[in-house]
Amino acid sequence: MDMLLIHNANEVLTLQSDTKGPRTREAMSHLGVIENASVLVEGDRIVAVGPLAELEERYSEKVKKAKRIDATGKVVMPGLVDCHTHLVHGGTREHELNMRLAGKTYMEIMNAGGGIHYTTTKTREASFEELYEKTSRHLDQFLQYGVTTVEAKSGYGLDWETEKKQLEVAKKLQETHPVDVVSTFMGAHAVPKEYKGNEEAFVDMVIDEMLPKVAELKLAEFNDVFCEKGVFTPEQSRRILEAGKRYGLIPKIHADEIEPYEGAELAAEVEAISAEHLLVASDEGIEKMAAAGTIAVLLPGTAFFLRAPFARGRLMVDRGVPVAISTDFNPGSSPTISLPFIQNLACMNMGMTMEEVLCATTINAAHAINRGDEIGTIEAGKKADLLILNVPNYKQLQYFYGMNHIDTVVKAGEVVVEGGALCSSATTVSNR
Amino acid sequence: MDMLLIHNANEVLTLQSDTKGPRTREAMSHLGVIENASVLVEGDRIVAVGPLAELEERYSEKVKKAKRIDATGKVVMPGLVDCHTHLVHGGTREHELNMRLAGKTYMEIMNAGGGIHYTTTKTREASFEELYEKTSRHLDQFLQYGVTTVEAKSGYGLDWETEKKQLEVAKKLQETHPVDVVSTFMGAHAVPKEYKGNEEAFVDMVIDEMLPKVAELKLAEFNDVFCEKGVFTPEQSRRILEAGKRYGLIPKIHADEIEPYEGAELAAEVEAISAEHLLVASDEGIEKMAAAGTIAVLLPGTAFFLRAPFARGRLMVDRGVPVAISTDFNPGSSPTISLPFIQNLACMNMGMTMEEVLCATTINAAHAINRGDEIGTIEAGKKADLLILNVPNYKQLQYFYGMNHIDTVVKAGEVVVEGGALCSSATTVSNR
Ligand SMILES: [Zn+2]
Ligand SMILES: [Zn+2]
Repeated sequence: MDMLLIHNANEVLTLQSDTKGPRTREAMSHLGVIENASVLVEGDRIVAVGPLAELEERYSEKVKKAKRIDATGKVVMPGLVDCHTHLVHGGTREHELNMRLAGKTYMEIMNAGGGIHYTTTKTREASFEELYEKTSRHLDQFLQYGVTTVEAKSGYGLDWETEKKQLEVAKKLQETHPVDVVSTFMGAHAVPKEYKGNEEAFVDMVIDEMLPKVAELKLAEFNDVFCEKGVFTPEQSRRILEAGKRYGLIPKIHADEIEPYEGAELAAEVEAISAEHLLVASDEGIEKMAAAGTIAVLLPGTAFFLRAPFARGRLMVDRGVPVAISTDFNPGSSPTISLPFIQNLACMNMGMTMEEVLCATTINAAHAINRGDEIGTIEAGKKADLLILNVPNYKQLQYFYGMNHIDTVVKAGEVVVEGGALCSSATTVSNR
Repeated sequence: MDMLLIHNANEVLTLQSDTKGPRTREAMSHLGVIENASVLVEGDRIVAVGPLAELEERYSEKVKKAKRIDATGKVVMPGLVDCHTHLVHGGTREHELNMRLAGKTYMEIMNAGGGIHYTTTKTREASFEELYEKTSRHLDQFLQYGVTTVEAKSGYGLDWETEKKQLEVAKKLQETHPVDVVSTFMGAHAVPKEYKGNEEAFVDMVIDEMLPKVAELKLAEFNDVFCEKGVFTPEQSRRILEAGKRYGLIPKIHADEIEPYEGAELAAEVEAISAEHLLVASDEGIEKMAAAGTIAVLLPGTAFFLRAPFARGRLMVDRGVPVAISTDFNPGSSPTISLPFIQNLACMNMGMTMEEVLCATTINAAHAINRGDEIGTIEAGKKADLLILNVPNYKQLQYFYGMNHIDTVVKAGEVVVEGGALCSSATTVSNR
């Protein structure tokens, strides 16, 4: 098997800890920094991390055979995990931006033909091939910003045919693209126009027709719902999530984004793995999530792009909620794939520390998609998803804000980004 | 002379206009977009811009000889101009960031050994060589983010020897590095510890000893001062700026950043070319700037990084002030070189439109450093500073926020960035 040695990094952030499960409070600040350290990789797995002399002594044969990457003066850390995206979708919506900058409301933009229904139409119209190519290019971009695992939600179909198409594109990309794609079914992302005033029938359809097929075709691991006034009620959300559980789908929930709706509370009650957004989550909901260990997936990019107030990330960490942060990549409310920039926002606009945002985009994000045992830290046996960053210490990642510091990305033991640029072997589109 | 043809861009943003001087109000939105257009370059100058067929007919010999760059599906625009930076400085201050995130004040950080005096010490200690190498690496980064001209202020010396060293580093880089560096003397950036309680003596020293030498050695074109409560009073600032004018140095002023201090008013009165920051500029100051045509150089990155309120950019544009925006790159309050990200901030946090922020970082920024006739638009005779961007239309530059969309950078007719990466011939450090 191929051996790889990343040697003499200024700092290796292992993120190792005795804590099992998602990190909370002070544990979110423990980056497990080893100075002047190296990482040895065999095939797609991490063999060891430590001082070069130690690795040379313990694994002398493997070290001799290894291809070497010099990380002198640089920082090495686990690949970033983007645990909440609406990855597969048709079209772009840049034409709405000046309307929003001029103060138009979401409803006014909807009435002008914009909003989620625009994306639904574009996603329905796009062929499997078109969606596959567009999404593959986005995954290439994710790699360039250091993201090695992406969660992908359906939910721009709102009919079975399109939901299935979205999930199948994600599944195919999981097989063909270096980035790992983890799928979430989100049939209940919006009420389709056809069902306005007849929401219960749509909920029944999701439960009785879509969920069984998702499970049968093994198209997703998670089941998500948009619990929001005017979209799905807590009761409807609960029905959908409980039904998903019977099919083995782990619940997630878009909760308390625009108006408080006891979404955080519901997340704790249905034992969701995570609750997302939480911009207006109540103190009581936050307490319940902390008690239940529900991961808060915070999406500060959405607040930035919609010019809305930010979630209370500082408070949630202080109250003991395990916090992850993510791009929410989607064409309407957060069209960025830069998770490093989202880290900056979590510092500057939610008051999280430089250490907490790194935990929130690696191991805690991995736990939010049930991959905490596989990725998110640098330790023996885990998948070799590794970043080499063009900074001498990790604090400069947030300090030199708004910039991409990626030098090298190793995905499952293979170098896929070098000198900030995608290796030609890494992309799927150019391969085909 | 070498010929270069950038052909078939989806959109070329020429920024051409009949307006002479900095753009105001609606004129800031006129990007002069030509669809399916090409740009012909000879040596370091733009020859023509227009449809390929037209260029082939009018300049058939030149077009035949030209090296070609295909811009199909992409956007071409003028190189970005970063008109306010503290480019040349020693050290970094990432260790202060968690203190600030924890709510520590600037004064508390100063008392813990941080703040501007930390940078002054590091800048005094650094050799010419060290400063030159560090700054050259930053200029390489600027190029990768599409910035082809940078203003550079002194002001971390606060003694003549160090001020001179900073200005000489900038001058040397102007000769050796592809990025154009335009120098501003800012001896009155802070009151050095040695002069606490004796500020007038320091002002006298700046006026009587430093300014004549700056002029004699031709080390700067502009003269800047930090007019702020506890730093320099409006009266002291006026003395320094008027004295600079007698030596041919054009006035600039750091005004109304923390507390209102009639800095905007002063800028208009002394006929400063620009006033910077203006976070708390008064309505009356804004009116006076509009009447005088003083350019407002807004620095939203500083507000973002210091978690402070943003300048009223929307209002200033509406009131007829010519607005430029810039990174304020410096180690204390804005350690970013990403002017594209600063554009995003100007949209999302100051309500400027996608068009206005492009004008504010090209032609208006060029006017803010007295280069409006030389750079900032794509038109015959101007310097061939050109960007090719990986987006099909300019609206996606702000829409896909937090990302760097640079594909190719042409500086004075030479390709210096290709596929987002620096061409090895472009850097000075690796050349030596
Ligand atoms: Zn979402
Ligand atoms: Zn400044």
